[in-house]
Amino acid sequence: MSAQYAIVGCGGVGGYYGGLLQKAGFDVHFLARSDYAHLKKHGLKVDSVNGNFSLPRVNVYDSPASMPKCRTVVVALKTTANHLLPEILPPILEDGGTVVLLQNGMGQEEIVAEFVSGATIVGGLAFLCSFKAGAGHIKHVDYGRVVFGQYSADGKPAGITPAVTRIADDFKKCGLEVHATDFLLSARWEKLVWNIPFNGLAVLLNATTAQLMSDGSSRGLVNILMREVAAGAAADATAIEESFIEKMVAYTVKMAPYAPSMKLDYDAGREMELEAIYAIPLKRALDKGVQMPATETLYRLLFFLNKK
Amino acid sequence: MSAQYAIVGCGGVGGYYGGLLQKAGFDVHFLARSDYAHLKKHGLKVDSVNGNFSLPRVNVYDSPASMPKCRTVVVALKTTANHLLPEILPPILEDGGTVVLLQNGMGQEEIVAEFVSGATIVGGLAFLCSFKAGAGHIKHVDYGRVVFGQYSADGKPAGITPAVTRIADDFKKCGLEVHATDFLLSARWEKLVWNIPFNGLAVLLNATTAQLMSDGSSRGLVNILMREVAAGAAADATAIEESFIEKMVAYTVKMAPYAPSMKLDYDAGREMELEAIYAIPLKRALDKGVQMPATETLYRLLFFLNKK
Repeated sequence: MSAQYAIVGCGGVGGYYGGLLQKAGFDVHFLARSDYAHLKKHGLKVDSVNGNFSLPRVNVYDSPASMPKCRTVVVALKTTANHLLPEILPPILEDGGTVVLLQNGMGQEEIVAEFVSGATIVGGLAFLCSFKAGAGHIKHVDYGRVVFGQYSADGKPAGITPAVTRIADDFKKCGLEVHATDFLLSARWEKLVWNIPFNGLAVLLNATTAQLMSDGSSRGLVNILMREVAAGAAADATAIEESFIEKMVAYTVKMAPYAPSMKLDYDAGREMELEAIYAIPLKRALDKGVQMPATETLYRLLFFLNKK
Repeated sequence: MSAQYAIVGCGGVGGYYGGLLQKAGFDVHFLARSDYAHLKKHGLKVDSVNGNFSLPRVNVYDSPASMPKCRTVVVALKTTANHLLPEILPPILEDGGTVVLLQNGMGQEEIVAEFVSGATIVGGLAFLCSFKAGAGHIKHVDYGRVVFGQYSADGKPAGITPAVTRIADDFKKCGLEVHATDFLLSARWEKLVWNIPFNGLAVLLNATTAQLMSDGSSRGLVNILMREVAAGAAADATAIEESFIEKMVAYTVKMAPYAPSMKLDYDAGREMELEAIYAIPLKRALDKGVQMPATETLYRLLFFLNKK
């Protein structure tokens, strides 16, 4: 049997899902950078609301060249590291293999499609509250649902392809809630209904989701931003129902007070995922004649802070 | 001769203009709160780019009841203190006297008109970089031009009234650059072309005007905000020419790096002037069917911070 899964990045997303895949019996190979030595020596530890587990030994590598070719490569890097993918992916992806871009925002599939020919490209969306507490140590705080969809260059529904079905089935075997979508771009827009307001506002106002929802002014802005995303989505890909927006608001209200990933990145002095979460959605909407002025205001404020 | 000028508030605005009026020979009476004892004992000191001066003795009072009635009352409080005016103004304003509201933003004249009957109400706009360095100690950093205009309840041009001419002449005798406008609401909108972008952005991005102008993203947002103000102004009162906006940008670029008053207020833990600078202009524009979405976004972000 050839190697099954490569997991690129061993942070809150890659460590959690990769760890679950290995625990469920899949053959998993992690590519890590700064945490390589720790993972090699101590393995991976996951503290999860669904039950803690440890993997004392993991297959971990510090360079793509040292890895086996894998049938499926799950990219769980921040999108800000996507400039590394042209060097990472070709050596580790089996001929005719599948790349899963388990990342925030949009635009990453287009980038990868340019240099991975003959591969199947699948987008993944993680509805997950997790973070890396230290090298080889993942904390999973809440949720965990994952959505997979086939990438299509024309941005139209691509059906549920065999690659999507296979990966969705594998993740289901980990005990995860998994959804296969026939329309990836639509799913990416839907996820932005949450990510566009809460990531930016958490950074700009130094606030948790709970604080943002308990103040009438910021909650009103959340509503404005969500409706702008729906307008952008409607022009570019898909109608987002009012009931979906209301569901997202209710979901956030009942969520444990939470700092979105962009807030963690900003506080740690890391680059924020502004291109994937703000710039590309803004551009796609504008290309279809739809302005998102509150979103653009957030983006410009965050862009200034990102350079500081 | 009855008392000429009451100056309500002895901060960066009241201390500067009131000090200049006294220095020019006018009969000036200051109402102060926290700085009363210091002013009574040590007088007023103004460090100005146009030349420093000291007034070892000033007429200063700690309550309206102890003051003489004055022909002209210049209100130089922050607009956030305007709820105090119904108690302050009636005891110190001569019958048929004039109230000059030398304040930021808009909406203050309407408030005062409700409880000062028979008085003339004049709006004043200070294009001034100054602040209070300590009790009775004003630092004047740059500019100083002042604009006066007659308030009219209907928001239409009111002509250059005798009260406006008299006050403008008095301020000119102080060596100040003074302009009398026949259209106060228009002048207030024009001033907001600067105040709406720079006050809010300085707070949200913890930045000086120079930093905001040297970054392409924030400078672009300044341009968007200025054009929203022009659109609001056009619907509510007056056309603001593109050349005026360009002049404001050029003026800011050559200004010494400067923290706008709202930034000083925020950093000192004081309430920000959000009602006068954001809420009322937004409402006036919306009443005429014009949305200012980037401005509203700033306002909602600042409103959240104001409560913290």
